[in-house]
Amino acid sequence: MPLTLHAVSVPVFVRALKALDGLLTKGEESAVARGFDPAVLLTARLAPDMFPLTRQVQIASDGAKGGAARLAGQAPPSFPDTETTFAELHERIAKTIAWLEGLGPAAFDGDPDADLVVTMGGQDYPFTRQSFLFGFVLPNMYFHVSAAYNILRHNGVAVGKRDFLGGL
Amino acid sequence: MPLTLHAVSVPVFVRALKALDGLLTKGEESAVARGFDPAVLLTARLAPDMFPLTRQVQIASDGAKGGAARLAGQAPPSFPDTETTFAELHERIAKTIAWLEGLGPAAFDGDPDADLVVTMGGQDYPFTRQSFLFGFVLPNMYFHVSAAYNILRHNGVAVGKRDFLGGL
Repeated sequence: MPLTLHAVSVPVFVRALKALDGLLTKGEESAVARGFDPAVLLTARLAPDMFPLTRQVQIASDGAKGGAARLAGQAPPSFPDTETTFAELHERIAKTIAWLEGLGPAAFDGDPDADLVVTMGGQDYPFTRQSFLFGFVLPNMYFHVSAAYNILRHNGVAVGKRDFLGGL
Repeated sequence: MPLTLHAVSVPVFVRALKALDGLLTKGEESAVARGFDPAVLLTARLAPDMFPLTRQVQIASDGAKGGAARLAGQAPPSFPDTETTFAELHERIAKTIAWLEGLGPAAFDGDPDADLVVTMGGQDYPFTRQSFLFGFVLPNMYFHVSAAYNILRHNGVAVGKRDFLGGL
């Protein structure tokens, strides 16, 4: 596929979200195998003032759909952040992927260097479409998928870099 | 800048490496402020079978220069992985950035979908230039920068997402 704004965003987000889904599966299986309640992992965090696993997954979902929505000039679906089980987090990821995959490449046409002002936390940030993707959306999404990975890794779940990469 | 293989790789790597550099500075400052030897952080890890901070920085450096080198059809510089201090890690990052910035955009010309077979751990992986960047190099680099971030965060260093993103 050519180097388009769609090609360097949607498939990349979907791949990361599928990897995140696989990490959660390994987390739950590990808890069951080790004989503790998998829900313990959902509230685990790496520092007391850092978001727990569930919130990392929710923000990764929000970052992917919100980022793609802005690049495509569409409104993203709103999910209420009520997940409390692994099954619900898998469902959240599946809904996010389904919405992303429904955005056709044509929605991403247009100048990658067009201005894009993004309001976050009440403040306006001047980006171009391209700088928004590479300066915020992509690293932000990997930041939260990595946080999920490291929370699981720190809690003894046998995940490795290939799980994070989503295969090689 | 247009959406070129250079624009979606080198500046993205440089930004991540500069962010990593800033994270290390905050780590060292935090150790000094809290009255312990900063070198303790260099050997910190999130799990006993996971690489410590120093190695995460070295691999982030290798991933960035190795990835860019393959995309540009050039040989990357070899660094001997002998860093044992924060100062040496900063130097490693600076050398990596200097080499990346010396690769002109023209080196990245050519079809983003050209085949690129990459040998890792003695095994051949068939990529295209584009799939190598987005399916391996970028997530791999963020994986190691995130590991560094989370090691520091877990050890009480006051870093936040903006430090990881390298500003907004």
